Amino acid sequence: MSSARTSLDGERLARLRLSTVVEPGDGRLVPLLDKLGAEALLEAVRRGELPDGQGVPEAWAMHVARADARAQEAVDRAHVTSMRWVCPGDPEYPDRLCDLDHIRSSAGVGGAPLGLWVRGPLDLAGLVESAVAVVGARSATTYGCDVAADIAADLTDAGTTVVSGAAYGIDAYAHRGALALSRPTVALLACGADVDYPRAHATLLARIAETGLVVSEHLPGRTPTKGRFLSRNRLIAAVATGTVVVEAARRSGALNTLGWATELGRVAMGVPGPVTSQASVGVHQALRSGQAIVVTNGVEVLEDVGRIGSTDATPPRATRSVLDQLSTGVRAVLEAVPAHRAEQAEAIAARVPCSVGDAAVVLDALERDGWVEHGDDGWRLARRADLSPAAADRTVTG
Amino acid sequence: MSSARTSLDGERLARLRLSTVVEPGDGRLVPLLDKLGAEALLEAVRRGELPDGQGVPEAWAMHVARADARAQEAVDRAHVTSMRWVCPGDPEYPDRLCDLDHIRSSAGVGGAPLGLWVRGPLDLAGLVESAVAVVGARSATTYGCDVAADIAADLTDAGTTVVSGAAYGIDAYAHRGALALSRPTVALLACGADVDYPRAHATLLARIAETGLVVSEHLPGRTPTKGRFLSRNRLIAAVATGTVVVEAARRSGALNTLGWATELGRVAMGVPGPVTSQASVGVHQALRSGQAIVVTNGVEVLEDVGRIGSTDATPPRATRSVLDQLSTGVRAVLEAVPAHRAEQAEAIAARVPCSVGDAAVVLDALERDGWVEHGDDGWRLARRADLSPAAADRTVTG
Repeated sequence: MSSARTSLDGERLARLRLSTVVEPGDGRLVPLLDKLGAEALLEAVRRGELPDGQGVPEAWAMHVARADARAQEAVDRAHVTSMRWVCPGDPEYPDRLCDLDHIRSSAGVGGAPLGLWVRGPLDLAGLVESAVAVVGARSATTYGCDVAADIAADLTDAGTTVVSGAAYGIDAYAHRGALALSRPTVALLACGADVDYPRAHATLLARIAETGLVVSEHLPGRTPTKGRFLSRNRLIAAVATGTVVVEAARRSGALNTLGWATELGRVAMGVPGPVTSQASVGVHQALRSGQAIVVTNGVEVLEDVGRIGSTDATPPRATRSVLDQLSTGVRAVLEAVPAHRAEQAEAIAARVPCSVGDAAVVLDALERDGWVEHGDDGWRLARRADLSPAAADRTVTG
Repeated sequence: MSSARTSLDGERLARLRLSTVVEPGDGRLVPLLDKLGAEALLEAVRRGELPDGQGVPEAWAMHVARADARAQEAVDRAHVTSMRWVCPGDPEYPDRLCDLDHIRSSAGVGGAPLGLWVRGPLDLAGLVESAVAVVGARSATTYGCDVAADIAADLTDAGTTVVSGAAYGIDAYAHRGALALSRPTVALLACGADVDYPRAHATLLARIAETGLVVSEHLPGRTPTKGRFLSRNRLIAAVATGTVVVEAARRSGALNTLGWATELGRVAMGVPGPVTSQASVGVHQALRSGQAIVVTNGVEVLEDVGRIGSTDATPPRATRSVLDQLSTGVRAVLEAVPAHRAEQAEAIAARVPCSVGDAAVVLDALERDGWVEHGDDGWRLARRADLSPAAADRTVTG
């Protein structure tokens, strides 16, 4: 890592010091940082004067007195495990995390991290350029663990980095699926990146840090709390382009990660399991509600995040762009027209849903423009109008 | 059964005779019956003169000579097992089957049946007034069979009749789930309703005919063929308001039934299973493509077919009617707004999908009309605007 990236001055040092004052993931930071920047915000907290007469939260006021000392402790401690402090604007900081600045949970959690402690030999931004989160239940079944490892291996093999939380159960098997190929994987922790939690995963975490990266927004040495697991989940969802939940019971934390993925507009996916298994109940709810898409293997995950057929360097998604020019209503009808068989306007209208009259008018217009075809059996997509993202890419690259 | 219903004269006799001439499910019948009626059509086939100079298909011409004799044989044979011939217009004929007159498969299969042979003590139309099809793989797993029986028992217990095909595997367990409660179930066969197919299901079929109904559009004594299984599937899908596929391998016939349900605008549902099970691959494909909705138990099936919360006699679906007045595009945005949490316009737009600008304009309009609410965390449905069918019914009844 270059010294420029690890030099601790100005904003980067102020962000580190602020991270000793404010619990990472505290959404109140976002507008303050936006308005003042880290250095001025730290000074404002010290002075007890936030903008617009806003009071300084008691905990912040209490911690700010020791901010400089605690930041120095963190630097010293990080030195032992060769961790570096990566801030927004640093080349290694994943831009995707900035999407978090626009989102806050009902519990007030939100915002991009002040910075990340990164442990391991690789470049974080480079590693997550193509990344999918694979998460799930701690009390997973052998079925779930096998599937998680399989999907992770498929993704890794295709050059997509598997991100997870290093917890018992699904998380661990997701990491192991990547490690089995001796390839990198990223663990995002709810404690310091140098803390072995759970203890039984000390070896697993060491292996991840050797070939991939262990990452945390928490100070070195910090222990996990329930709140930290929840705020950590936002980072897992944000750093990846999609999240796959493999098993999740009714109130599983993995569903919280899926919720963040949805909020962030990432691809939310779920692996079905036996309906008789409590470990799959939460996944099935997410699938049933339409929050998540069914995936049964790594290839389908790659399809969903748009990584299949898009390896060519030509500009992707031309067909999508044309599609984007259609109005919402017209597109809703178009997307209800089946590709591989014909269907009557009634059935298409029922799926939009809209009135049959509306559907008929739109279908006629779409036929004029060559999007759909009409035969004795009803309406179908015109051959050139396959609307899947993969097809869009094929149109461009093939 | 009243003698009026079984009297064989005029159209009803002509329909029976036609069913000895034309293979049931031959979609070419629909426009001819529509134009001529059964009596005139039978005469036209005898004369070799169809309307508009259309030639009489060779097979029809061959069979029509023996139509009267074969119809009499059928009546005699049906007498042995107390079967009756039920035609469109008869009180016992399920109106829902008439939807088939608007649909034809790529293989030319379609049309409501000329009539149905019905074996058993109950009124067919009454029994399927609330009915759901539960179908699936012949080579099912014990998991699938257990789930099929469970769902069938739940549906039966709630007063909804389970319809299936009496095949090995899922079909048999669907029927058994109803029979276990000593309640009726309907078997729709691809052979004569007096034929024990498969032979090993002779006892099962006898039990179904005792407490429920065994039904077929085929002549008594007819054996099943591949084509008859496929045309039979259309009846299973059409007679029910929804079809649940429990297990289905990649090219399972159960997916054909699901396809008919989709074409007919019925509710298409699928029960997930282990992704490692070949018996669930076809179901997962249907779920992943969005053709079918995930269901994990009978209560969810009843929700989907609108049987929960709709037992009151007041007019159903008032909220739906109001919804129907919104334009397609506006409704697409409204339906993308989450009910139980707030979401930013970006995320909502991504799900429609439409541009963020479009979504913002529509959301503002929806807010003015009281459909959605806007807070610090983003947009959510207004409390009164729960869009689920069940909620619509609650709005009216509760």
